[in-house]
Amino acid sequence: MNCSVAQCLEVVGEWWSLLIVRDAFLGVTRFDDFQAHLGISRNILTQRLNGLVDNGVLKRVPYQDHPPRSEYRLTERGRDLWHVVTAMRQWGDRWAAPGGPPLEIRHTACGHVMEAIPVCSHCGQPLDAFAVTAVPGPGASKATPTVRAWQGVEAGSYGPARA
Amino acid sequence: MNCSVAQCLEVVGEWWSLLIVRDAFLGVTRFDDFQAHLGISRNILTQRLNGLVDNGVLKRVPYQDHPPRSEYRLTERGRDLWHVVTAMRQWGDRWAAPGGPPLEIRHTACGHVMEAIPVCSHCGQPLDAFAVTAVPGPGASKATPTVRAWQGVEAGSYGPARA
Repeated sequence: MNCSVAQCLEVVGEWWSLLIVRDAFLGVTRFDDFQAHLGISRNILTQRLNGLVDNGVLKRVPYQDHPPRSEYRLTERGRDLWHVVTAMRQWGDRWAAPGGPPLEIRHTACGHVMEAIPVCSHCGQPLDAFAVTAVPGPGASKATPTVRAWQGVEAGSYGPARA
Repeated sequence: MNCSVAQCLEVVGEWWSLLIVRDAFLGVTRFDDFQAHLGISRNILTQRLNGLVDNGVLKRVPYQDHPPRSEYRLTERGRDLWHVVTAMRQWGDRWAAPGGPPLEIRHTACGHVMEAIPVCSHCGQPLDAFAVTAVPGPGASKATPTVRAWQGVEAGSYGPARA
């Protein structure tokens, strides 16, 4: 499928894989710690960790020689999934956390608990679905999903435009 | 699981559901169009659309009386998934699109093809995994994943800190 969303789902589009990545962002590196945090079988965890290593999201780093032991660390490719995990966390905080956010994120540089706000890389204005239009890119092909302009359809509706 | 990432996955953590949401952002509203775009069985599509309606991500909006027909539109809750879909798309563009991005996004207000850059809601600086620390929020409980501070561990490693 010629779609970057689908390519990302191909790598982490599975409940446990993304929760493993979430835990890696929270500092978990070792098999037993992932297992304790996630409460899944060693078998499933082994499969998912191997898949994330095969896809270049995690890498094995030796931490002990006798007996040999490795832990799992995020690669640069894996670390870049922070934006995906953060967008999911913020959505869950807004729409599915009646008791308030279980975790909050502090920006180390400014010291404040904050949200990540997506802004335009050109003009710096905040973005949402209504602010943008999808256009074919250099990698577009016949398999690229049809592109239609976004616009409000009617008062009170958030649906996209009809063709 | 007391985690907003897991709550988001509960709603869209399934290949087809998120691709349906992606198509909704691209302007698809009708059953037959979703089916043509996604190439899945009517049975699976019906299940996934019903699930997204039950979860408040899509709503049915009548567009014809004789015979009665409805289409699917994003709700506000669904529209807010734009940040998740955008983060996934951008990750796929960077790491899994050797021919370049299949789709690009133009910011309507400034007219430029651009990327969404997550910035701190307090100070406006760009964010990544190393820029932040997770801290317990008001909804934290014993089930909230352990929080450890992020820091580089060693040169060349992107792994998180050990406890």
